[in-house]
Amino acid sequence: MKKVKVFAPGSIGNVGSGFDVFGLALDGLGDILEVKESSNGKLNILKIEGDDGISTDPDKNIVTVGAKALLKEVGSDQGYDFIIKKGVLSGSGLGSSGSSATAGVFAINELLGNPYTREELLPFAAIGEKVASFIPHYDNVAPSMLGGFTVVRSDDPLEILQVDIPENLHLALVRPNVMIKTKEAKKMLGETMLISNAVHQFGNIAGLIIGMHRNDIPLIGRSVEDKLAEPVRSKLIPNYNIAKEAALNSGAAGFNISGSGPAMFAICDGKVVTENVIEALREVYQDDEKANYYISKSDLLGTRRID
Amino acid sequence: MKKVKVFAPGSIGNVGSGFDVFGLALDGLGDILEVKESSNGKLNILKIEGDDGISTDPDKNIVTVGAKALLKEVGSDQGYDFIIKKGVLSGSGLGSSGSSATAGVFAINELLGNPYTREELLPFAAIGEKVASFIPHYDNVAPSMLGGFTVVRSDDPLEILQVDIPENLHLALVRPNVMIKTKEAKKMLGETMLISNAVHQFGNIAGLIIGMHRNDIPLIGRSVEDKLAEPVRSKLIPNYNIAKEAALNSGAAGFNISGSGPAMFAICDGKVVTENVIEALREVYQDDEKANYYISKSDLLGTRRID
Repeated sequence: MKKVKVFAPGSIGNVGSGFDVFGLALDGLGDILEVKESSNGKLNILKIEGDDGISTDPDKNIVTVGAKALLKEVGSDQGYDFIIKKGVLSGSGLGSSGSSATAGVFAINELLGNPYTREELLPFAAIGEKVASFIPHYDNVAPSMLGGFTVVRSDDPLEILQVDIPENLHLALVRPNVMIKTKEAKKMLGETMLISNAVHQFGNIAGLIIGMHRNDIPLIGRSVEDKLAEPVRSKLIPNYNIAKEAALNSGAAGFNISGSGPAMFAICDGKVVTENVIEALREVYQDDEKANYYISKSDLLGTRRID
Repeated sequence: MKKVKVFAPGSIGNVGSGFDVFGLALDGLGDILEVKESSNGKLNILKIEGDDGISTDPDKNIVTVGAKALLKEVGSDQGYDFIIKKGVLSGSGLGSSGSSATAGVFAINELLGNPYTREELLPFAAIGEKVASFIPHYDNVAPSMLGGFTVVRSDDPLEILQVDIPENLHLALVRPNVMIKTKEAKKMLGETMLISNAVHQFGNIAGLIIGMHRNDIPLIGRSVEDKLAEPVRSKLIPNYNIAKEAALNSGAAGFNISGSGPAMFAICDGKVVTENVIEALREVYQDDEKANYYISKSDLLGTRRID
């Protein structure tokens, strides 16, 4: 019986200004998935570790829904057993669903002898990710699959662009212990935005890409400013404004919500600053005993085998 | 009596996706301005060549309004005589007002002994440009002043970023003989846009900047796609869709409206393609005897003395 063990990094979706478009893979934070051929011709979730809130029904679980779509496409009726180790909590805003979706299709593709490239796997991962959000979108699955910083230039036809990241760019992350579901967070935004706000966003999106190319971390930091989701979603996050101010006062170049939150990220130039920012954030959330803190750089490898 | 003669290039505002944010200076197309000290302590417009529709009232002319703002700031009561040679027709969408505004403040700054840098002059140019549009904005004055491709990352505080352009990027331009005033064109757009359209725009804005960095002209061409102004403003331009199709079928990498139109630009890879595109556009507008056609690269120098 063939088997495989893969790691899929979590990610920051949106990265502030790039709503539904930018994504950044996170180093040292992600899902581990073991998949083994089974003889019963079905997809079976044997175990989920690290997150109690996830369905083991293969028709409702992100991992198996994506895997099933891929198996259907290649016309395989092989069964598989799945063991899922969640390193990214669902509803955290750290790309949990993207990580799971990516791990599932990547593992199956490996077991099938790699008929598809990573890029070609993205639509199947997006089908899995759809379980967690309204429509298939790519701002988490793309960085999770490919690593680094990704841009969804177009989702139909799909065109993902990768952008190099300054070597010294670090992320300070905090996840307070509240849960925000992407579906609900999307609904809150309504369907339109002010053109004047869109224009601000256009400038910041361009600024962020230029900052990446110039290795200009202060420019990247200024450019994560967001006029679309942040004003609405920040209200769901306890002490958001206090946390932002504390991070910026401690030397962060920029601060915003990761995906639909509640996790937040700070753009930092170097490890020392990052540690100072984490220290400041710990103080803000000192009463939240279940809050998590991470220091991360970008994961440049994307989803890969670890067996 | 001190005098100066300056050239200020015209420009493509918006460049498709980058509404109010992107601008590209045009080679070989622009205003020439002669300014001479006068003894009557006033700003006098002696002559305007090349455009009949422009006011010679110094309080209503873009050139002198910007110049006056600069003179006020430095506390000068020196008078000046202006001779304006319009190389860019007003209401063409080719940055006519930006070109005039820039020429005016640049010339006065020269005559004052250059107290300000080009970047510092931009707010004064924007005050002049305000005569032609609702609010001071920078997507035409920035490329006209600085040359090349510019991004208004922020207008308050003002932050303009410059991006290198592929050496081989050429522009095929056509201006059919209809006039569109920026003020009216802005009103037509309303105040909001669909978030789904904004997300498309975000991807294209990032794609265009990445294309510039990668010297990837096809990517730049795909990324000038616009969901905000083009659907509305294209209706004001005769045969817009036919012209766009003709340009793309003749090898253009992308096509859109220059500023608020009616001029249109095609992104082309090399001179031969550009000539083919112009040929195709001439056919579309063969009944418009007053239509203009230009082949241009980006003007990399911006506004400068030519005396």
